[in-house]
Amino acid sequence: GGRYKIAVLPGDGIGTEIVQVGVAMLEAAARRFDFALHFEEAPIGGAAIDATGEPLPAATLEQCKASDAVFLGAVGGPQWDALPSDKRPEKALLGLRAGLGLFANLRPARILPQLVAASALKPEVVEGVDILVVRELTGGLYFGIPKGIFPEKKGGRRGVNTMSYSTFEIERIGRVAFEAARGRRGKLCSVDKANVLEVSQLWREVIVGLAPEYPDVELTHMYVDNCAMQLVRQPRQFDTIVTENMFGDILSDEAAMLTGSIGMLPSASLGSGGPGLYEPVHGSAPDIAGQDKANPLAQVLSGAMLLRHSLRQSEAAQAVEKAVQTVLEQGYRTGDIAAPGAHIVGCRAMGERLLAA
Amino acid sequence: GGRYKIAVLPGDGIGTEIVQVGVAMLEAAARRFDFALHFEEAPIGGAAIDATGEPLPAATLEQCKASDAVFLGAVGGPQWDALPSDKRPEKALLGLRAGLGLFANLRPARILPQLVAASALKPEVVEGVDILVVRELTGGLYFGIPKGIFPEKKGGRRGVNTMSYSTFEIERIGRVAFEAARGRRGKLCSVDKANVLEVSQLWREVIVGLAPEYPDVELTHMYVDNCAMQLVRQPRQFDTIVTENMFGDILSDEAAMLTGSIGMLPSASLGSGGPGLYEPVHGSAPDIAGQDKANPLAQVLSGAMLLRHSLRQSEAAQAVEKAVQTVLEQGYRTGDIAAPGAHIVGCRAMGERLLAA
Ligand SMILES: CC(C)[C@H](C(=O)O)[C@@H](O)C(=O)O
Ligand SMILES: CC(C)[C@H](C(=O)O)[C@@H](O)C(=O)O
Repeated sequence: GGRYKIAVLPGDGIGTEIVQVGVAMLEAAARRFDFALHFEEAPIGGAAIDATGEPLPAATLEQCKASDAVFLGAVGGPQWDALPSDKRPEKALLGLRAGLGLFANLRPARILPQLVAASALKPEVVEGVDILVVRELTGGLYFGIPKGIFPEKKGGRRGVNTMSYSTFEIERIGRVAFEAARGRRGKLCSVDKANVLEVSQLWREVIVGLAPEYPDVELTHMYVDNCAMQLVRQPRQFDTIVTENMFGDILSDEAAMLTGSIGMLPSASLGSGGPGLYEPVHGSAPDIAGQDKANPLAQVLSGAMLLRHSLRQSEAAQAVEKAVQTVLEQGYRTGDIAAPGAHIVGCRAMGERLLAA
Repeated sequence: GGRYKIAVLPGDGIGTEIVQVGVAMLEAAARRFDFALHFEEAPIGGAAIDATGEPLPAATLEQCKASDAVFLGAVGGPQWDALPSDKRPEKALLGLRAGLGLFANLRPARILPQLVAASALKPEVVEGVDILVVRELTGGLYFGIPKGIFPEKKGGRRGVNTMSYSTFEIERIGRVAFEAARGRRGKLCSVDKANVLEVSQLWREVIVGLAPEYPDVELTHMYVDNCAMQLVRQPRQFDTIVTENMFGDILSDEAAMLTGSIGMLPSASLGSGGPGLYEPVHGSAPDIAGQDKANPLAQVLSGAMLLRHSLRQSEAAQAVEKAVQTVLEQGYRTGDIAAPGAHIVGCRAMGERLLAA
């Protein structure tokens, strides 16, 4: 049972191609597990700029708010790079995060046994890596005030952004992270720069204060520079990482690249109560757009996260993840994860293999 | 000829052991290339806290100011971790940077052919990596105002730090980076987050404005999250990287770890006119302190940077670097860079091999 409304935002570049595959998989899951999905498409990013002049039209945001979940492809491309920064496609992402209150960004970096060889790291270092980065997404430098570029009294100008967190903001992301760690291997590493930054000292104090509520979770702390090192040196030491917005942007991309296959990595952005947003970690890849070469697996795995987190259809989520495993075991690969002896397929053909699986 | 005054700050942990080797090598270089060095020791970090209650006593800073260069070991250790943050050993580093106006931090990450196997990355990915990170060191989040932890009107508290840069600060670090790139392979990558941060937009604008003065340098730009990825994916694409303080802290440590041997990596921190500061990238390693196990090579290579940048004794610098190459070719290794078939030696014995070389 259950009827759900999904806002579909294909965006730019390969976004439209991979979202098609993702939607087909969600539809198949709904049929198989007997619930109903109603998809409504809306423009975002460059496509929305071309259509309306705005990267995130008000109607798109309204439609997202009225949905149970948002399924996004990717935004951006060279043709919009010259626009003033508040009119660029990426602003749509920030607008969605703020507009939907999506304060928790879940970014798993798991290396699939079939893809160990794709990593730049030695197999013995990356085998078994399974990290979840919980990134705060609506605070810190991205949104802090004051911000801007101001003239200086003595001549010249000054650029300013503010890394600012309240105890409330730290507590709520901390809870998401402790809960996530509890559902995984029970280890949470909070990453900050408390040896230099006051905002990190408050961060650490608040996270430490939550720990007694989660006695089953082992909490550790690490400085962000050391974490950037340790991710390369010994990534298996990490289970769940929680950190603020800017550090999370950097570390989650580093962790993603450890796997060697960012075409494989999904993400979820969650708020409290409203719809969640699900999108692949990779970008819109304008260089291969429209050529049926894109890897749809990150989009499909984002669909699995949507089923699990927003629709609470965890069996359906598992079935989708299983299908991804199966096509990889059958040897199907898109160009970005090509390996000797693999069957190289395009985006559409990969979609067909997935549906069959 | 030439007479130079060097302030020697051994600090904590292995700092005292490795600085001894470093000083011996500088003395040998002075004898061989016919200049005179006068060393004066001063306390810093935990050692200074124990002696005076302050991590950076005023007398130490004064002595540094009156020197031609500062030669630092490492600071910190568990026995000082419980102190309030403004009394911790690390504060001495921030105090030295601010007090000496050391705005340019040069952090080379070069992989020596003899140590390729030490990296967590595949040999074919790291072979030949030779990156210089030019990190701004006296601005950004580390020093920006306002900063602190403040009560909120509606209850709770708020932690705040400010990422702030003036055109003047960006220009002067930009020039150091362009000059450095010119002396290397002529490629400069400026790393920022201009798709989100206003301070990065000003950063990029000012760096772009300098480019016409350096037509022989090829300038590119990269977002910090992408840079964290690309360092893992294809580190050889980078020559010189320039970035702000916090990003530089994270990326230079990541770049250092690519080499797999942070016990090998030196650094220089330079101001305009005054003495430069030279120290290894690694920390004080309290776990192996006092056991004659430390790797002195990063300290010795920091000495080579001191000879080159502050004393303009580039022949002497080369001789020191050559000696490091020689002992590695002879198969001598400390425990941290142990390899099958190597002669494992302690810190003192490594120092003797270096002097012989
Ligand atoms: C495109 C950009 C604004 C965005 C961010 O920095 O958050 C992206 O890098 C991400 O991680 O989702
Ligand atoms: C110890 C700490 C204050 C320092 C920094 O963050 O700058 C260190 O990480 C470094 O990179 O020199």
